[in-house]
Amino acid sequence: MERADEGLPFLLKYENVADYRDGEVWILDRRAYPAREEFVRCSNYHEVAKAIADMVTQSGGPWLAAALGMVSAVREAKSFPLKKAKQGLKHAADVLIHARPTTSGNMETHIRRILKTALDALDRGEDAEAVTYEYVQKNLENRYRNSRTMAMYTVDLLPDEITILTQCYAETLIGFILLLSRERGKKVSLICPETRPYLQGARLTASVACDMGVPVTVITDNMPAYILSKGMAQVFISAADVITLDGYVVNKTGTFQIALAAHFHGIPYYALGIPSAGTPTLNDVVIEERNPEETLHSMGVRTVKAGVKGYYPAFDITPPGFVSAVITPKGIFAPCDVKRYFI
Amino acid sequence: MERADEGLPFLLKYENVADYRDGEVWILDRRAYPAREEFVRCSNYHEVAKAIADMVTQSGGPWLAAALGMVSAVREAKSFPLKKAKQGLKHAADVLIHARPTTSGNMETHIRRILKTALDALDRGEDAEAVTYEYVQKNLENRYRNSRTMAMYTVDLLPDEITILTQCYAETLIGFILLLSRERGKKVSLICPETRPYLQGARLTASVACDMGVPVTVITDNMPAYILSKGMAQVFISAADVITLDGYVVNKTGTFQIALAAHFHGIPYYALGIPSAGTPTLNDVVIEERNPEETLHSMGVRTVKAGVKGYYPAFDITPPGFVSAVITPKGIFAPCDVKRYFI
Repeated sequence: MERADEGLPFLLKYENVADYRDGEVWILDRRAYPAREEFVRCSNYHEVAKAIADMVTQSGGPWLAAALGMVSAVREAKSFPLKKAKQGLKHAADVLIHARPTTSGNMETHIRRILKTALDALDRGEDAEAVTYEYVQKNLENRYRNSRTMAMYTVDLLPDEITILTQCYAETLIGFILLLSRERGKKVSLICPETRPYLQGARLTASVACDMGVPVTVITDNMPAYILSKGMAQVFISAADVITLDGYVVNKTGTFQIALAAHFHGIPYYALGIPSAGTPTLNDVVIEERNPEETLHSMGVRTVKAGVKGYYPAFDITPPGFVSAVITPKGIFAPCDVKRYFI
Repeated sequence: MERADEGLPFLLKYENVADYRDGEVWILDRRAYPAREEFVRCSNYHEVAKAIADMVTQSGGPWLAAALGMVSAVREAKSFPLKKAKQGLKHAADVLIHARPTTSGNMETHIRRILKTALDALDRGEDAEAVTYEYVQKNLENRYRNSRTMAMYTVDLLPDEITILTQCYAETLIGFILLLSRERGKKVSLICPETRPYLQGARLTASVACDMGVPVTVITDNMPAYILSKGMAQVFISAADVITLDGYVVNKTGTFQIALAAHFHGIPYYALGIPSAGTPTLNDVVIEERNPEETLHSMGVRTVKAGVKGYYPAFDITPPGFVSAVITPKGIFAPCDVKRYFI
């Protein structure tokens, strides 16, 4: 049987963004990467929540960082009487779930499961820290397995030679797509919009491709429609932070306008992710608006004069009519049909 | 009669980007503004051409800088015998016209007219430098008059309260729109995409609005579709580097994808400019591709690791079906009908 994490050596330094070391959570600082490879050390779950809020890691990064924050909270709780320990853990879960005004119902589900694992272990008098850590590791393996499966379905759809346009940083999804394409002899190139204000496309996605020897071109965020109009990319692929059960794709701002341009040019858009049971309809989506100052700086340098305001919606919403397929660990769905994922 | 340059005090420091001082052309360095207000001093037309190629000034800036470069060339030519002087001037015109692989047929027409003025003055034994300088000034006044007229037609179309989404830096056009709106008691706000890689939206457009006390918000280039989907702007307005006679609008990269998003949301897009007799059809458009390295830096800092390539098409093309109106000094045209401008 194939290992779920096969090929991960290439990807681990990006995806496996957080590590647990004796109560501390070490988070790769994606704000600095690739200029500098630095870790933010968090000695408790409060610091983990702050690091998530400060965008030390983003995309799928908070998923693991928050989980390890729970393990750290369990270690801390061990020194308290059972009742107080359990109360503390519930509080930690709340803090970590709400570290960012979350667009993702998946984060809550994920952390509540970890909480339950920890509480049960405490009740049974087991080594709750070890049990919770092991549970988080199993979840991570499962996440890699899912990523690999989604990448496999995606690569099935690709012709033998293709240039993919992507957006932001789709983490192991894009890594596995590039890896599996190569294994099958498909010749893939990548075009990454830089993805302001954090430049995840330029800094993270392009670095993964570059490390793998895949030809990669970075453009600015105003160029995708031109690229598509010239036939320079033949498919648009992104991850999805949320896929509502009525088929809307919530992903990093900019996804929607690329999807619109792809649609106009007859180029397919594939969104990869697990449909969000916690966000059944468009009406349940809350778009996180981050600190407006973040749009007024680039690489740490201010771009505007005093008195100019900014605005920073972190995500946008692509209607199902502009999504060619939703690719999930259970296969490929038409966007109008994603609720069948849970049947 | 209204002066063509009424209200210009606000705008001059951006639009009147180049000055002529005893043979030298001083060009405001828009790459540094507003962080620093610096001028690049060009002592001859070669240096002017290099400054244009280096993007010291862009948008309409090269129009004036190249014209003053011709005046500088005339001053230089005065010391030569007539035949050699005329040859020198023709060469100067060629160098300035081709300073950037031009998308604009208007630049050639403009410089050839200045060349003719200078050659005629030399033939008549007049002070060719003074005559040419005066001609350039008259052209500039005419340019302001045209900008003001186009802004007037645009403001006619705006409701009493509106937020305008724009792109890049439409120079006096956007300045006059804001100015005339205020004169008529219309309450206008502005949203500017920052317009990477040079950030003209953040640095120039937002500065003009800010100096005029107009509420202005800067977003990154991946946000316009979201802004439009939320009804946060009710019109999209841009200048046009070229308007072909079959109705295509060539403007700074990003215009096309904003126009697509505006169209999808039923929001009008007005393109302002003079139709380009030198670019009759879409087939005559040549999109300038600039140094790819420029997309791999932001505010002077490199954003990608070694091995990652860039790509930089400076303009894109919006088909007539996504343009609600072309607004010219002779009035408002349907994009399919712009050739009537010359009748």
